[in-house]
Amino acid sequence: MTAAPEPHPRRGELFLAEIREQPEAILRLLEHEDEFGSVSRAIVERAPTVVRLVGHGSSDAAASYGVYAFGVLPGWTAMRDSISLTVYYDAKLDLSGSVVVALSQSGETPDVVEYVKRTRARGALTVAVTNGPESELGRAADATLPLAAGAERAVAASKTYVNTLAALALLAGGTALRGGEIADGLRRLAEQMAEALGPLEHMVSNVAAAFAYVGRMYVIGRGIEFATAREVALKLTETCRVAAEPLTATDLVHGPVAALDALFPVWTIASRDQSLPAVVDAATRVREAGATVVASGNAATEIEGAAFALPVPEPPLPILSPLLSVVPGQLFAAALAHVKGLDADHPTGLSKVTHAR
Amino acid sequence: MTAAPEPHPRRGELFLAEIREQPEAILRLLEHEDEFGSVSRAIVERAPTVVRLVGHGSSDAAASYGVYAFGVLPGWTAMRDSISLTVYYDAKLDLSGSVVVALSQSGETPDVVEYVKRTRARGALTVAVTNGPESELGRAADATLPLAAGAERAVAASKTYVNTLAALALLAGGTALRGGEIADGLRRLAEQMAEALGPLEHMVSNVAAAFAYVGRMYVIGRGIEFATAREVALKLTETCRVAAEPLTATDLVHGPVAALDALFPVWTIASRDQSLPAVVDAATRVREAGATVVASGNAATEIEGAAFALPVPEPPLPILSPLLSVVPGQLFAAALAHVKGLDADHPTGLSKVTHAR
Repeated sequence: MTAAPEPHPRRGELFLAEIREQPEAILRLLEHEDEFGSVSRAIVERAPTVVRLVGHGSSDAAASYGVYAFGVLPGWTAMRDSISLTVYYDAKLDLSGSVVVALSQSGETPDVVEYVKRTRARGALTVAVTNGPESELGRAADATLPLAAGAERAVAASKTYVNTLAALALLAGGTALRGGEIADGLRRLAEQMAEALGPLEHMVSNVAAAFAYVGRMYVIGRGIEFATAREVALKLTETCRVAAEPLTATDLVHGPVAALDALFPVWTIASRDQSLPAVVDAATRVREAGATVVASGNAATEIEGAAFALPVPEPPLPILSPLLSVVPGQLFAAALAHVKGLDADHPTGLSKVTHAR
Repeated sequence: MTAAPEPHPRRGELFLAEIREQPEAILRLLEHEDEFGSVSRAIVERAPTVVRLVGHGSSDAAASYGVYAFGVLPGWTAMRDSISLTVYYDAKLDLSGSVVVALSQSGETPDVVEYVKRTRARGALTVAVTNGPESELGRAADATLPLAAGAERAVAASKTYVNTLAALALLAGGTALRGGEIADGLRRLAEQMAEALGPLEHMVSNVAAAFAYVGRMYVIGRGIEFATAREVALKLTETCRVAAEPLTATDLVHGPVAALDALFPVWTIASRDQSLPAVVDAATRVREAGATVVASGNAATEIEGAAFALPVPEPPLPILSPLLSVVPGQLFAAALAHVKGLDADHPTGLSKVTHAR
């Protein structure tokens, strides 16, 4: 008797399955809590003047979150560093007070690996955070932390993105001596996400049907949710071929609002925190320009006049909200790709490991 | 006898006139060379661990250039700082080793003014660079440097953008004890720009006719030219209502390349420096995706298969190339707005001073 061949997954099923798997992936990461604690202590010993975050694509979106995780938790200056300044221009920066946190799902992105080699040689403490701890990046850094998301088979990242946020929260929390509190928060958040996934999946299908012919969008957020805006825009671009640009709520009003019309909708990430008033103001300007507003996040219902609201639970700690805010956008991208007949698992022209310089 | 009323300028004539005026605007800025030198010396005395650049819109695009001007010239770490971390989240960052360079054409952008007040109160040395030295920003900072661009009447920035780049080059050059060399380079560059403007204006009109129905574009650049990509994309969005997103050449390949097709062209900023090979590679991927390539910059002719090449002169110093690279994009935006019947001087929904939070 021969075993039945493994069924070939339906187009887009891998991406959707990996979005659904995110709560378990977060729990898998938390099994490594002690490793994160050790690296946080090593970072504190270095007393860094600046934390340099690098990555491309979804990892770079996560780096935007890292700026706030380090800024809000230990109160440190963190930046998305220019890779090309070090790798191409060979700038002679003083790196003695620097900690590098290099983010790469595969751990094989050439310029991120080269950046880590050079900054390490110049005296920075280098930490790799990757789903491929045995990768070239993992071998190049002083310390390597796993994303522990499990194999990600869809080309478009989902669970590795959420686990990168979780990893940055744990790492930054550890440096503020709040690692345990962050880990507990993430455990509770994984439960909230598991409960929210089913209802959200149902809700996004209506929105996707309405957006089948949309060619361009803005995705706006501010503060800690700018990372979410960047990641949702990237998902829509990769999997749905929508020209979706992420903007801070304030930058939208400094120019791009002029391009809006009824066929150019704006996805708004609205979370209940200090930046919410700026987001509410920007959404008002969007409506005045005649564009459709979709609102997601735990303050989605506070965006007046939104055509669609996709609320998510309030997390145990405000700093963790981006892990929940991104889920409606991920599910929407999966649903819209399906409506458009596109294969979210294998977008045209992309491969899982990007070797581009 | 009554004086004839001043003729009302044609739609878009202000924007075009201010682009043409840029060489003179650079020379006006250079009349303030000594003031820049004094502030550079004050910055050197502070021996900063980090230079924090802030601004919105075109000023934020210029801030991307500042990261490289300070990185390449004195070899310092400069970053586009998060305004919201300080203004909304009230993060307790150590600013004792920080220099702030705040960029605002009007000097009235509320969150930039608030950022300067807070960082100054926490010990940063704050420098305002603005076309409105008597503005609220000018009064809030420790030192204020003029853009000296003259009144900018079109809503879309042009000469204030180029003068912000010149100001950052002068300031960073001064900290590297190369202020005189940069000033001489800018004088020569102003001549090159004056010579190039006429021929470029002629060339872009053909390209604009071909792009009359384009709704979305990417503008790619890398390294010091990422600022140019950001500014050209913003001009196209504001004045031509094109959804134009700026991307680094490498980030394009990490996802967005999947959205390209024959109706989704890519504008490529190509300058002869260490990042050119990455830009050439990305342009190859763009062509493979079936998209049209427009190439501008002093290495425009090295982008094989470009449908249109808009070369500019090589500047006296490589660090100054973005001041010339942006000109074809500015002129193209003016020409495309004209072809589309839009008023580049007064884009829908924008005003010259943005008070949005």
